[in-house]
Amino acid sequence: MKGLTQKQVLPLAQVYGVLEPGPVVLVTTARAGRANIMTLTWHTMMEFEPPLVGCVISAQNDSFDLLRETGECVLNVPTVELIEQVVGCGNTTGRKVNKFRRFGLTPMPASKVQAPLIAECYANLECRVVERRLVTKYNFFVLEVVQAWIDPRQKRPKTLHHQGEGIFQVTGRRLKRPSPKTSLLAE
Amino acid sequence: MKGLTQKQVLPLAQVYGVLEPGPVVLVTTARAGRANIMTLTWHTMMEFEPPLVGCVISAQNDSFDLLRETGECVLNVPTVELIEQVVGCGNTTGRKVNKFRRFGLTPMPASKVQAPLIAECYANLECRVVERRLVTKYNFFVLEVVQAWIDPRQKRPKTLHHQGEGIFQVTGRRLKRPSPKTSLLAE
Repeated sequence: MKGLTQKQVLPLAQVYGVLEPGPVVLVTTARAGRANIMTLTWHTMMEFEPPLVGCVISAQNDSFDLLRETGECVLNVPTVELIEQVVGCGNTTGRKVNKFRRFGLTPMPASKVQAPLIAECYANLECRVVERRLVTKYNFFVLEVVQAWIDPRQKRPKTLHHQGEGIFQVTGRRLKRPSPKTSLLAE
Repeated sequence: MKGLTQKQVLPLAQVYGVLEPGPVVLVTTARAGRANIMTLTWHTMMEFEPPLVGCVISAQNDSFDLLRETGECVLNVPTVELIEQVVGCGNTTGRKVNKFRRFGLTPMPASKVQAPLIAECYANLECRVVERRLVTKYNFFVLEVVQAWIDPRQKRPKTLHHQGEGIFQVTGRRLKRPSPKTSLLAE
């Protein structure tokens, strides 16, 4: 019963709220019928709408080649319940392993890109590469989120925040403060 | 008794562990004896060592001009106890307000840049701008961390993760999983 059938469209103007806290994400890529999953922590929002996301994907990774060649991926945001899959996808290579099968994750068709969504993740952001100037020197891609999905049942998802060396911080309590802007804190 | 006197050098190879979880940071900049503070959530690690950090600072902000002109800043990482200062610095402009005085924060001299450290923050990363190609189009700067400091008494700092509209998630429990690499999860 899991998956997209229970997901709703997330308005693009609300995408930043998913990524701005800095959660670990699972990046899916695909080419010629083969899909891969990579664990990613080095990402940042770059614009609200259309939502732009910058991310570093090491050139040593299978996902780097897939992303560079197809220009498409999906950023899937897992909750803490998926920690074993997050670690597993980060510690194996898609050149040798079908990670969906190995880690019990369910690929589902995206609406605007070839890469699949991961059904078990609470949010899924379909992306296209829109900026490559920093790819050669920094492995840094700028992505535009072209379609976004969310599981409306997960009101307060607990996300994973990687500190390095296998240590994850899990989001706990929430605090609310007055904000005169709906946007990025600044000044 | 707060401040740098109680801080230790953080080896540059360990800087990523501070920023990779995605905490809200306070960016300090300075020019001609005037210092400013900005709340920043849109940042990402880009390299381990020397540590590189990418960040988006809107051109509407006073801090954008200060960073672009001086090429220097400090990324100060607050814990949850500083939430009022984080929100205050994000909702006022340094063009009109001395934020150190207004929010009771203590500037301390950095060792390698002109911008001051914020004594009350548990980590302080002195940075220089090393890449400007995406500044014009995306307000995106790449910084190199040239000196880093940490408060050794704070073993498990609770950091703030901004979700938008004044809602912050606070890191709670920690989970440890085997990791074959000390580095970025990937593949």
